[in-house]
Amino acid sequence: MTEFDAVDVIRTKRDGGSLSGDQIDWVIDAYTRGAVADEQMSALLMAILLRGMNVDEIARWTQAMIASGERLDFAGVGRPTADKHSTGGVGDKITLPLASVVAACGVAVPQLSGRGLGHTGGTLDKLESIPGWRASLAYDEIVNQLRDVGAVICAPTDTLAPADRKLYALRDVTGTVESIPLIASSIMSKKIAEGTQALVLDVKVGSGAFMKNVDDARELAATMVELGAAAGVRTVALLTNMASPLGRTAGNALEVRESLEVLAGGGPSDVVELTVTLAREMLAAAGVEGDIDPTDVLKDGTAMDVWRRMIRSQGGDPDAPLPRARETHDILAPTEGVLVELDAYQVGVAAWRLGAGRSRKEDPVSAAAGVELHAKPGAHVRAGQPVLTLHADDPGRFPRAVEALKGAITIAPAGARPDQPLVIDRLG
Amino acid sequence: MTEFDAVDVIRTKRDGGSLSGDQIDWVIDAYTRGAVADEQMSALLMAILLRGMNVDEIARWTQAMIASGERLDFAGVGRPTADKHSTGGVGDKITLPLASVVAACGVAVPQLSGRGLGHTGGTLDKLESIPGWRASLAYDEIVNQLRDVGAVICAPTDTLAPADRKLYALRDVTGTVESIPLIASSIMSKKIAEGTQALVLDVKVGSGAFMKNVDDARELAATMVELGAAAGVRTVALLTNMASPLGRTAGNALEVRESLEVLAGGGPSDVVELTVTLAREMLAAAGVEGDIDPTDVLKDGTAMDVWRRMIRSQGGDPDAPLPRARETHDILAPTEGVLVELDAYQVGVAAWRLGAGRSRKEDPVSAAAGVELHAKPGAHVRAGQPVLTLHADDPGRFPRAVEALKGAITIAPAGARPDQPLVIDRLG
Repeated sequence: MTEFDAVDVIRTKRDGGSLSGDQIDWVIDAYTRGAVADEQMSALLMAILLRGMNVDEIARWTQAMIASGERLDFAGVGRPTADKHSTGGVGDKITLPLASVVAACGVAVPQLSGRGLGHTGGTLDKLESIPGWRASLAYDEIVNQLRDVGAVICAPTDTLAPADRKLYALRDVTGTVESIPLIASSIMSKKIAEGTQALVLDVKVGSGAFMKNVDDARELAATMVELGAAAGVRTVALLTNMASPLGRTAGNALEVRESLEVLAGGGPSDVVELTVTLAREMLAAAGVEGDIDPTDVLKDGTAMDVWRRMIRSQGGDPDAPLPRARETHDILAPTEGVLVELDAYQVGVAAWRLGAGRSRKEDPVSAAAGVELHAKPGAHVRAGQPVLTLHADDPGRFPRAVEALKGAITIAPAGARPDQPLVIDRLG
Repeated sequence: MTEFDAVDVIRTKRDGGSLSGDQIDWVIDAYTRGAVADEQMSALLMAILLRGMNVDEIARWTQAMIASGERLDFAGVGRPTADKHSTGGVGDKITLPLASVVAACGVAVPQLSGRGLGHTGGTLDKLESIPGWRASLAYDEIVNQLRDVGAVICAPTDTLAPADRKLYALRDVTGTVESIPLIASSIMSKKIAEGTQALVLDVKVGSGAFMKNVDDARELAATMVELGAAAGVRTVALLTNMASPLGRTAGNALEVRESLEVLAGGGPSDVVELTVTLAREMLAAAGVEGDIDPTDVLKDGTAMDVWRRMIRSQGGDPDAPLPRARETHDILAPTEGVLVELDAYQVGVAAWRLGAGRSRKEDPVSAAAGVELHAKPGAHVRAGQPVLTLHADDPGRFPRAVEALKGAITIAPAGARPDQPLVIDRLG
């Protein structure tokens, strides 16, 4: 590999130039093995955030991160594979029912997931509220479970894109998270290295999402679809609404409970709609469209069967009672009318402050804490009716959660309607 | 002191905002004591480099760096003090004769200097070619020497703006040196903390200088003059030419030898002119204009007397022979005509490659290595006449130095004239 000087590479990007493929290969490799220091990489990341990267640079950056570790291979699983990635939202528990639904339809789902940071929850944190369930699996355990059960939701293995893991931790503490090239390459390096054949991206837009406006979300989605296609992964992206929380819960055990309702054939209509829509996209991308419909496997219990086997295969007890918070606190509707807005970001911050999320990677999360929604946008509410119920083990957490929710509820006169389609756009 | 979150401070600047005074105070203090990590500060520095800082931010940043250490106080010296700072050039040995000249005229010169990095030499490296001379003095040694001799050239004490020292080392390895707000605040924090009453800035412009064009140099000069004035230091800045090297030598012992020629009443005319010009500015800024003229103290030997006492006071032997290189190599004029250009940057890189400079702070430098100029721009040269002589202890260093000089010498037909005034502008 050609050797470069870290300061020269930083200067190239700082001064608005494009990094060469060799420069990118070198800097990612050298950073992974510690020859480029954290303080040098963070300066480069800030320069990338402010100067941008072109399509070729993003593709090479992604490839270099994949090359920093091992690529997984699910050829031995014996059936097509498809994965989904969400850019993160409030109440976004879709992965939980979705993996089981898609597996029940005949496509294997290797869902390597993350933990929550800030106001959005993490899939692994949610599943860890199930007694006994463990997130860390060895590579052969993943392959075996995919073959035997068809679905696995677990933590990435240590050998998967280690450069990305190191970079992600650095970006988090250096104010260099919010860069579309860096977000796109981070997500796609893991998904490509994971070895899935098809990938559906759920790019969230709105107050509770990372991308606050449709243009940014579309740019991120287009970048990722291009990266996927270039790597031979059939990739589709949906832009979906995150102006208000998904479903009726935000929290760990609360969201598992809601996912079980969906798997039992019920559950909130938006969670069901998004689960089914994403499942159809995954099946189509995996090339098995039309044989079995996702709505059927929810109704006939086969998705629930996959769920129970998946939880049990990872040491969890699907019949164990889920933790419940010791204390609750209701937020009431101040007036009568139509609930036109329930701000997702504010609900996410409230759930986080109640203990459902963490400020630092090392922090523990509360399984029981979170926010329950009694009304969704579009609903008619009476003055004094509970709109939200806060859940926490420690009532001392309520005041700051209540503060986070100030102005989160907007009620309009009868006849008003929120105008928020769930799926905003589709790319790929 | 108000506490902030490092990521919030980084984001403020990254997104183009202004840092508050409290944010600046906090981040400099927290970085100095290690509560803000190197990787966080380097991200902030890159954001500052690309987004800039306004006048208030630069002034506060400078004050915060001064406040990170102790301010020196030369009130006990018993005479006015003046200092000079050069932004660095090739063959810029002016500090050496200048400190003695100004002291001989009755103004004390507390000249805290640095070492060279890259293609420009460092004043301390030059003086260390004098056998026995030491750069590190304690605070009371500095005060005593100022009172007894009138001039001191030494390394900064450890307590002088430690934040700046830590930041400077970080900027060097993270591509964040080239920022006018950061350069200005770095220079001025040290000079203000040093406690001088008057300050003359020699801002170099041209290929061998840090600032390649007059506009950047003027902006840097204006920023520093403003910072000095705000801190109660009478500050003047000259913009001076660094298109070709100053004098006839670039190297450590070579430049000391040339400085001795100037102190003996001879020496290259440009070195004499700039020494005298800067000396008059320093005397005027210190308020003792007109009593004694700098040219007189060069002619009558009193400047040389100060020099000898200054060197001896710091352990050096002013009569010891200076190191000479074991090997030399001549660069010949390829054709006859007028030497119109002798590129300062290329000569600086050649001297550096011969061993006069260092790539890393820890590297040793060669006392004897460097470049000797036999002709200056404007001179008539014959084909085959030596224009430069390279000096090195190791002849293996000549090829890369010769390579650095490719195209450095421009010869035009008889009658052509280089048009380069030495002093380009004056501010303050």
